[in-house]
Amino acid sequence: MSNWRLPEYFSDVLPREAAVIEHLRRACLDTARGYGYALVMPPLLEFVDSLLSGTGQDLDLQTFKLIDQISGRALGLRADMTPQAARIDAHLLNQDGVTRVCYCGSAVRTHPEGVHASREILQFGAELYGHAGLEADLEVQQLALDCLRLAGVDRAALDLADNRIVRGVLSGLLLGSQDMEAILDALASKDAGELRLLTRDCTPTQRAAILALPELYGDADVLLEARRVLPQHALISQAIDDLSALARHHQQQGAQVQIDLADMRGYRYHSGVIFSVYAQGYANAVARGGRYDEVGASFGRPRAATGFSMDLREVAGFAAAPQASAAIAAEWSTASGLPEAVANLRRRGETVVQLPPGQAHEASAFSRQLVQRGGAWLVEDRG
Amino acid sequence: MSNWRLPEYFSDVLPREAAVIEHLRRACLDTARGYGYALVMPPLLEFVDSLLSGTGQDLDLQTFKLIDQISGRALGLRADMTPQAARIDAHLLNQDGVTRVCYCGSAVRTHPEGVHASREILQFGAELYGHAGLEADLEVQQLALDCLRLAGVDRAALDLADNRIVRGVLSGLLLGSQDMEAILDALASKDAGELRLLTRDCTPTQRAAILALPELYGDADVLLEARRVLPQHALISQAIDDLSALARHHQQQGAQVQIDLADMRGYRYHSGVIFSVYAQGYANAVARGGRYDEVGASFGRPRAATGFSMDLREVAGFAAAPQASAAIAAEWSTASGLPEAVANLRRRGETVVQLPPGQAHEASAFSRQLVQRGGAWLVEDRG
Repeated sequence: MSNWRLPEYFSDVLPREAAVIEHLRRACLDTARGYGYALVMPPLLEFVDSLLSGTGQDLDLQTFKLIDQISGRALGLRADMTPQAARIDAHLLNQDGVTRVCYCGSAVRTHPEGVHASREILQFGAELYGHAGLEADLEVQQLALDCLRLAGVDRAALDLADNRIVRGVLSGLLLGSQDMEAILDALASKDAGELRLLTRDCTPTQRAAILALPELYGDADVLLEARRVLPQHALISQAIDDLSALARHHQQQGAQVQIDLADMRGYRYHSGVIFSVYAQGYANAVARGGRYDEVGASFGRPRAATGFSMDLREVAGFAAAPQASAAIAAEWSTASGLPEAVANLRRRGETVVQLPPGQAHEASAFSRQLVQRGGAWLVEDRG
Repeated sequence: MSNWRLPEYFSDVLPREAAVIEHLRRACLDTARGYGYALVMPPLLEFVDSLLSGTGQDLDLQTFKLIDQISGRALGLRADMTPQAARIDAHLLNQDGVTRVCYCGSAVRTHPEGVHASREILQFGAELYGHAGLEADLEVQQLALDCLRLAGVDRAALDLADNRIVRGVLSGLLLGSQDMEAILDALASKDAGELRLLTRDCTPTQRAAILALPELYGDADVLLEARRVLPQHALISQAIDDLSALARHHQQQGAQVQIDLADMRGYRYHSGVIFSVYAQGYANAVARGGRYDEVGASFGRPRAATGFSMDLREVAGFAAAPQASAAIAAEWSTASGLPEAVANLRRRGETVVQLPPGQAHEASAFSRQLVQRGGAWLVEDRG
């Protein structure tokens, strides 16, 4: 009898944890609404072409495929809701000015991202379209930090990076795509030996810049160092200016800021400032986001875009259980006034559990009960 | 460029409708919590064997299948969360007494249930395990009606039926499985001509009972008629007693009750009282539920079970938009006191949209704005 086994890296969320996740879900959606982000609910399944538009191969491999019996075409079970939000901005809302949307739903991956990870996440995210200025990056970063604070992540560290730095450093390099891939991989793993090997044939200036990147990691002073050692390139200068402004703003708000100029995450997808938020004592980022101005192009409407997302099932690990008053036990009967008393308590937010005949002994599990005293029904603590 | 097209019978939920659904979702989960139902979150994907345990072929055909790259086994994308809740009751919670669980999540079907239906539903449901008495049926029916009332379905009609009636009438019939299927089909479609044909070889008593079933439809007086025309059989008598008690209780609460003794829904799955709730002017049931005492057996723990579920995306069609105060436009700046004023308003539940530079003209779309008056930031109506 193995009907109750679940596939690896899938799990049930039981009541205690589910209550935390539901509380967090509401808090995040309400916070995003407070910033003006409108909730949208894209479908779980889409045609594969649409679901993977502009996102690259990583997401393709992570996406479960199945066949639509109606169209005969391949459908994908979403592994990420961000491209769906971009599609909705481009085609359904199609507003001229700034558009803010948020979403919260399940997404599923063919493989877990780590040995302790789940293949099913509850993805909450917020996206801002139509403003290329830093205000948009600041707003989504601040919203991400606000949401994590609600989750109990008080001392979050904000990691800032920018794909334009690596793009600027690698621009003008005359390399085949294989060599370029190898350099990107070596940068991602901060493998200095491999980088030295791969850059043998570069000019000394190019080589020095590439070899400097893995070292440009640390607090905001890294940006001063970057101005000194990286080449004068419009993309690089703009990125350093932007990162400096963001770091300054967040430090004024009391946030801890880290810089990592060799951060290669989403290199083909992201187009500017990217960020990750880390919780103390936890190795993985709990929220990730950044610019992806070019994604809308695959839906026929390129426009500025930035946002973030997080897995609420993961974040719930940091969150405190929501406050709830203890449930009240009540007998099951249609005795005069009892149904009305029960309904009134429930309307006031109390949990009233009616014990059916034969289950009255279960009252001992409750700390409060509804009892009749002089004709009235009153809640009393059980002695 | 067709990257934005969705598969047939899938759709995006845009902000206006999403706000209604989210409001309804919270109201239903809070109402269920008030009755003592604990939220659980089963996974979207399970092994097919587990997902379809005890549910029969209909659900099998409605379930999308895909291959798990890790185990090499077939996974199903859930089309119904009820069997998942039964599995959780049987194996994870495994409580001795009464267990109440509720859930709310997406479920997907290979084919829509009607031309206007969606293949993706947002299934909210509540299940009560471990009590075989009528109190359990009453409680889940009352909870379903309470949730629908919150959704704006004030004048709901409750249809009651009971699979034991048909089981009792057909028991003792010496028919092959094909003939039995044909009779069940004819009962489901209330096809009197076909039933007459199929019952030619039955005894006069059996035939009269079968032919009477499609007529036993209407208000609670149908139960009096049923006692007169149906055979004296323990299953039938018990079902009529139960339906009479339920009808009387709901009528006392002011609910409109209908009886349909030939209702064949879930004949192999349900084991006793079943019910549907109808909204005025809407042909499909908006909530369905009933007894399925035997389902736990396929997870190794048969026990009494009753519950209901509804599609919140469908029910949202009846719901009023939630009350929300108009959003407030604010400029984007770090002017003295502005960030604090914005944060305070958001904490109080207001929506404050900061207009980035170059977007100040968008303020005309807002009815309220945050302005500086004598050093303080105040919310003012736009003239």
